[in-house]
Amino acid sequence: MTPAKPLPAYLAQRYHGWRATTFQDSMQWYRRLAEEGQRPRAMVISCCDSRVHVTSIFGAEQGEFFIHRNIANLVPPYQPDGNQHGTSAAVEYAVQALKVAHVIVLGHSRCGGVQGCYDMCSGDAPELEEPTSFVGRWMDILRPRFEELPQGERPDRLQAFEQAAVVTSLENLMSFPFVASRVEAGELSLHGLWTDIAEGSLLAYDPAGSAFKPV
Amino acid sequence: MTPAKPLPAYLAQRYHGWRATTFQDSMQWYRRLAEEGQRPRAMVISCCDSRVHVTSIFGAEQGEFFIHRNIANLVPPYQPDGNQHGTSAAVEYAVQALKVAHVIVLGHSRCGGVQGCYDMCSGDAPELEEPTSFVGRWMDILRPRFEELPQGERPDRLQAFEQAAVVTSLENLMSFPFVASRVEAGELSLHGLWTDIAEGSLLAYDPAGSAFKPV
Amino acid sequence: MTPAKPLPAYLAQRYHGWRATTFQDSMQWYRRLAEEGQRPRAMVISCCDSRVHVTSIFGAEQGEFFIHRNIANLVPPYQPDGNQHGTSAAVEYAVQALKVAHVIVLGHSRCGGVQGCYDMCSGDAPELEEPTSFVGRWMDILRPRFEELPQGERPDRLQAFEQAAVVTSLENLMSFPFVASRVEAGELSLHGLWTDIAEGSLLAYDPAGSAFKPV
Amino acid sequence: MTPAKPLPAYLAQRYHGWRATTFQDSMQWYRRLAEEGQRPRAMVISCCDSRVHVTSIFGAEQGEFFIHRNIANLVPPYQPDGNQHGTSAAVEYAVQALKVAHVIVLGHSRCGGVQGCYDMCSGDAPELEEPTSFVGRWMDILRPRFEELPQGERPDRLQAFEQAAVVTSLENLMSFPFVASRVEAGELSLHGLWTDIAEGSLLAYDPAGSAFKPV
Repeated sequence: MTPAKPLPAYLAQRYHGWRATTFQDSMQWYRRLAEEGQRPRAMVISCCDSRVHVTSIFGAEQGEFFIHRNIANLVPPYQPDGNQHGTSAAVEYAVQALKVAHVIVLGHSRCGGVQGCYDMCSGDAPELEEPTSFVGRWMDILRPRFEELPQGERPDRLQAFEQAAVVTSLENLMSFPFVASRVEAGELSLHGLWTDIAEGSLLAYDPAGSAFKPV
Repeated sequence: MTPAKPLPAYLAQRYHGWRATTFQDSMQWYRRLAEEGQRPRAMVISCCDSRVHVTSIFGAEQGEFFIHRNIANLVPPYQPDGNQHGTSAAVEYAVQALKVAHVIVLGHSRCGGVQGCYDMCSGDAPELEEPTSFVGRWMDILRPRFEELPQGERPDRLQAFEQAAVVTSLENLMSFPFVASRVEAGELSLHGLWTDIAEGSLLAYDPAGSAFKPV
Repeated sequence: MTPAKPLPAYLAQRYHGWRATTFQDSMQWYRRLAEEGQRPRAMVISCCDSRVHVTSIFGAEQGEFFIHRNIANLVPPYQPDGNQHGTSAAVEYAVQALKVAHVIVLGHSRCGGVQGCYDMCSGDAPELEEPTSFVGRWMDILRPRFEELPQGERPDRLQAFEQAAVVTSLENLMSFPFVASRVEAGELSLHGLWTDIAEGSLLAYDPAGSAFKPV
Repeated sequence: MTPAKPLPAYLAQRYHGWRATTFQDSMQWYRRLAEEGQRPRAMVISCCDSRVHVTSIFGAEQGEFFIHRNIANLVPPYQPDGNQHGTSAAVEYAVQALKVAHVIVLGHSRCGGVQGCYDMCSGDAPELEEPTSFVGRWMDILRPRFEELPQGERPDRLQAFEQAAVVTSLENLMSFPFVASRVEAGELSLHGLWTDIAEGSLLAYDPAGSAFKPV
């Protein structure tokens, strides 16, 4: 038998508070969203990290963003091999079924996944090299970028690696035929962002200069 | 060259509003979270659906929840085959690296992924049967449950299927050795929830009666 | 010999109920808090009054708030004279050792300590003037504010006095060098609140207009 | 001007949730408590530590406990010298004005204040020896007990020191004439408790054997 436990009491209490206020205030809208279906304008791909709240940063309400969150906001390349690809499924659903107008990839500072990849590429994290390491194999998506990092101090190189993860995801998104064709038809635009958790800053990728610049 | 575009102006504007208000009010805390690292109490696995806001429902702030979002809040079984498993990587990172105390799987009403799987299993969505359908292959995780659905009207069966997705994820979580060992050691607890978007209700899975009951 | 008595049975019974339910549900988290240490985001200074439950009002769980409670939620001015200052010790520990991001002073309606001070200042409570009155001497912290109270009915003046106690504490907090320097560095923010017990309302101090306004 | 800031938004949101649920459900009782005044059965003296929730452990509702919280749950000896003694004021108000039937001192494991005192007494925390250290001077209340600690490992000695803090407070309470007279008249009883945060255990002081035993 699945050993599920009751919800901790403090979460149950907070839920009842939400239902009596936020939900009550917006009930009609939530009902319409339920009955007519969602119609999000954008898909956001961000990290699982508890310090990244994309809905807070963008003041987004229920119904606005279709959000996929995984380790290090990575999109793998297009691989239609019949295996399970959760991220690719999310991209497919957002673009093909929901016809979102934007796909936004949001990276961030102090990313544990990117740091693990950096250590792995530096030979300092042999446990992540194991075939059985899910985190290690997932971060393989970013691995080829390690050679391209600029020289410098570790914090600067980590930040460059985090931003490289965003660019990698953008490039891999373009390897999906249904993404590329919509982008070329002007029906979909891609956006790369990186936020500094401590500073609250937000940079956007500018392909012209291959650089991240303040929004 | 990656065809990234500037951020839509309305989002840039909202970001600047967030930075001038919410971020200013909590800057010190965000800096500490950045410097000392996150210590989330729980991992939440929920759907990408734009109508599900787990942080809102639970009044959760930056730092509280490590959140993975994918299509239909599914966890695949443990498969340490060296391939890329984004969901398994997120679970591994939350449990092994962050040592969260709770993993909460949150399902919801009107789930497009579950509905697609239902149609596929009913023979009404041949396109999802294609090997190249990422959504179809992803929803294969839930497929075996179709046979177990109770007789009845389509809406009731869909709801039962959505709740079966939560239970499937809980069961698959237990197939991960590092999850099972921590659950058995009393260091980790699993929780299954399902929310009705239109009603704002919240049900929790009770393994005793294999039923979902109001929180 | 210290004449300690066994715990009243009804409290022992409730404790066992808590341990079998709330504690069981959250045991893992409490263990981590014990092993890794607390990291509260905020210090709250509130009154001992049995009708003020700051954790309930804010849905706060173990680990969120470092709470000091004394008569009338008062902070004395900075006096590093080598004597025992319990409130100053609590502030020092919260700010210097725990590096909290917020200090919240929470006042409330019908405060017995403030009422005693009001009567003392009005000449109606000579017993509080005695050097041996601990409550009287403690309320001396608020005494200078009596002259500034607006004219009006006693209940309105008492409420103004309660709110003046909050402002006094905020001002006295700023007399601590380690508070002032962190506030000026943007590493700590101060907040003044006042709650009406009967109405369940919550007002916040706005220094711009020197007024308390609904949250 | 006092630099008070607005309340962080997540706390404002949770407050509104509390007001719409818990407060609404109990409004009449809160109004009576406001109009007729509090009538708490017990005073509890516990630590500011964010991991100690006395109301949760004892399932206590608004109105039940008059709660003073300071560093290490210490009560200083009776010193009617006309200076400000916040803890003594709280004890005086609880016993003289509110006529509580019980005073409960609640100590706990992993107490940072007690640990600081231990290091100070061991010569490992010279900064706490400074006259300007509020924490150091406050912990002087416990200092004389250091010599009486049993030999052994540091964790065992720290636990003994935490429990000695409870006994010290009980003894100092008896130095207050208005406490001693009420205890001797059978109108007030004192209770010493110590809780292990990680285990959720609760021990009560038994003066007969000078030992703490499970409740």
